[in-house]
Amino acid sequence: MSLNHKTRRFLGVDIGGTSVKIALCDGTGRILRSSSFRTQASERSSEEIVLLIVEHSRELSRDEGIQPHEIAGMGIGSPGSINVQKGEVIFAGNLPFKNFPLKASLEKELGMAVVLGNDANVAALAEHLLGAGRGSSFSMTITIGTGIGSGIIIDGNIYAGANGAGCECGHMVIHRGGEACSCGRRGCFEAYASAPALIRRTKERVEQYPDSLLAGQAHQSRHIGGRTAFQAAAMGCPVAKNLLNDYFEDLAIGLGNLANCFFPERMILGGGISQEGEAFKEALQPLFEKELFKAEGLPQPQLYLAELGNRAGVIGAALMAEKALYGD
Amino acid sequence: MSLNHKTRRFLGVDIGGTSVKIALCDGTGRILRSSSFRTQASERSSEEIVLLIVEHSRELSRDEGIQPHEIAGMGIGSPGSINVQKGEVIFAGNLPFKNFPLKASLEKELGMAVVLGNDANVAALAEHLLGAGRGSSFSMTITIGTGIGSGIIIDGNIYAGANGAGCECGHMVIHRGGEACSCGRRGCFEAYASAPALIRRTKERVEQYPDSLLAGQAHQSRHIGGRTAFQAAAMGCPVAKNLLNDYFEDLAIGLGNLANCFFPERMILGGGISQEGEAFKEALQPLFEKELFKAEGLPQPQLYLAELGNRAGVIGAALMAEKALYGD
Repeated sequence: MSLNHKTRRFLGVDIGGTSVKIALCDGTGRILRSSSFRTQASERSSEEIVLLIVEHSRELSRDEGIQPHEIAGMGIGSPGSINVQKGEVIFAGNLPFKNFPLKASLEKELGMAVVLGNDANVAALAEHLLGAGRGSSFSMTITIGTGIGSGIIIDGNIYAGANGAGCECGHMVIHRGGEACSCGRRGCFEAYASAPALIRRTKERVEQYPDSLLAGQAHQSRHIGGRTAFQAAAMGCPVAKNLLNDYFEDLAIGLGNLANCFFPERMILGGGISQEGEAFKEALQPLFEKELFKAEGLPQPQLYLAELGNRAGVIGAALMAEKALYGD
Repeated sequence: MSLNHKTRRFLGVDIGGTSVKIALCDGTGRILRSSSFRTQASERSSEEIVLLIVEHSRELSRDEGIQPHEIAGMGIGSPGSINVQKGEVIFAGNLPFKNFPLKASLEKELGMAVVLGNDANVAALAEHLLGAGRGSSFSMTITIGTGIGSGIIIDGNIYAGANGAGCECGHMVIHRGGEACSCGRRGCFEAYASAPALIRRTKERVEQYPDSLLAGQAHQSRHIGGRTAFQAAAMGCPVAKNLLNDYFEDLAIGLGNLANCFFPERMILGGGISQEGEAFKEALQPLFEKELFKAEGLPQPQLYLAELGNRAGVIGAALMAEKALYGD
């Protein structure tokens, strides 16, 4: 890396349904200063969100003691359908953007180059370069959260598919005719392995086994969340262990399918559930290995846990801008 | 394309479990002359197969009236696990090759540059450049035969994955806990949508419905093959129509999964079943569309039928050599 990497400044923006995160980074992805605001997408227009991003960006540069024109560019990760070339958000579920020229709007207000990408791809770029993927040439980051998202980085480049949509791996059917998915299909990976799917499955078991430790745990905390089954399993509850095993098998099938179709070097698991840490990975590992197509004599994809947490979005956005504008 | 494309000569070799096909092509992939021999893999050693390829190659150049040294190079597609960089076949189910240096052995015998690749990838390259993929930048060719193979071409390059194995899309589970697959998993795409899977499903229906037209058709021809259900359906048999609809749904789910994970521009269907032609594509199309993730405002992958048939292997092998050795 050249000296310019350290002296150049980039803004990285991660737009989410709940909050918008903004960071001022150097060209190596190190966060110098960051802020965020609540998206309040139901109350705000696209233009209002743009103005808030501009305001926060100016504040960050002021606080850092640099002039806006000293910032080399801005990267943004947005959910939804993105036209990367045009810099438009075509559609994004929980956000007001609809055929919205996000790149052009921000460039006009800020007077700097702006690069737009898909949020999952951008976060994957950060994990690839600075997180669990560093040192590899081909990693796939799978984020298990409200949905299941993924980003694929090959030789430092974001895999975008022919239409820029990348890889919607959550919408791969693993159970034909199974649970209904938000996308309209049935039996999708996301309908079995996302956080809401785990919560749904936990609720089912609580109802089926009202005398279990799992049910006790749920009643005691008056809440069934993504962690409830893990907590009950740690207390030795056989119902929770069985549920998690079943959940992990679905997760392993989905990950195995992706391994067999893409053969990445590393598969990096992010999102809330991966924060269960090494115990989670150890439980998943043997089930995952069973699902791998044995291409004899060839190295197999390896599982890793994501390292950058929810900073991946802003870091990846800044790095995407650095790569797109300076290509080094 | 330069003039050199037309004047340079390449040998393309397609190694299969049943036969080995060899063609002398020009640099545009046009076949000038071709031959083949039966593989007889159970009786022949790897070295014997190499010598036969050499013999047939010399014969082709002699018949074409050119000297072996006038041939610019040879491309070979082999099934199995391939180490593309080393030019070795690590393992290939029905062939004697085991950690066999196919590239080096042929180079030594022939005195010309040899490029080794995976057979499905090589065939996909031919379809991409000269068949149903021509004019597109990103196509995926899915071959439905004894197994389900696939090759992905992005911007003219073969997608190889980190380990060179490309995409083993046949080994993507679409029915968790379903039919046993040859790979050891259960519920794989291949276990539902390959030609043997269709035959197995046809046999099941014949047994279940002994009075059906389908059963009559099977008894009359004393054979249940991949075409039996299509023939009975054409005669109006409701059992056959129902079976095919079920089969097409599985095929559509697998293809939809691949569409949603890769978002290629074109998905090209090859292999025996695709020879049912436009009627096959018309029956599949609406089921396939239902399985697509609607990335609003973005172009969707389109289905095509393969055009090159079983010539794709030799043509693609020759084109791979041309690309690898001359890169134009």
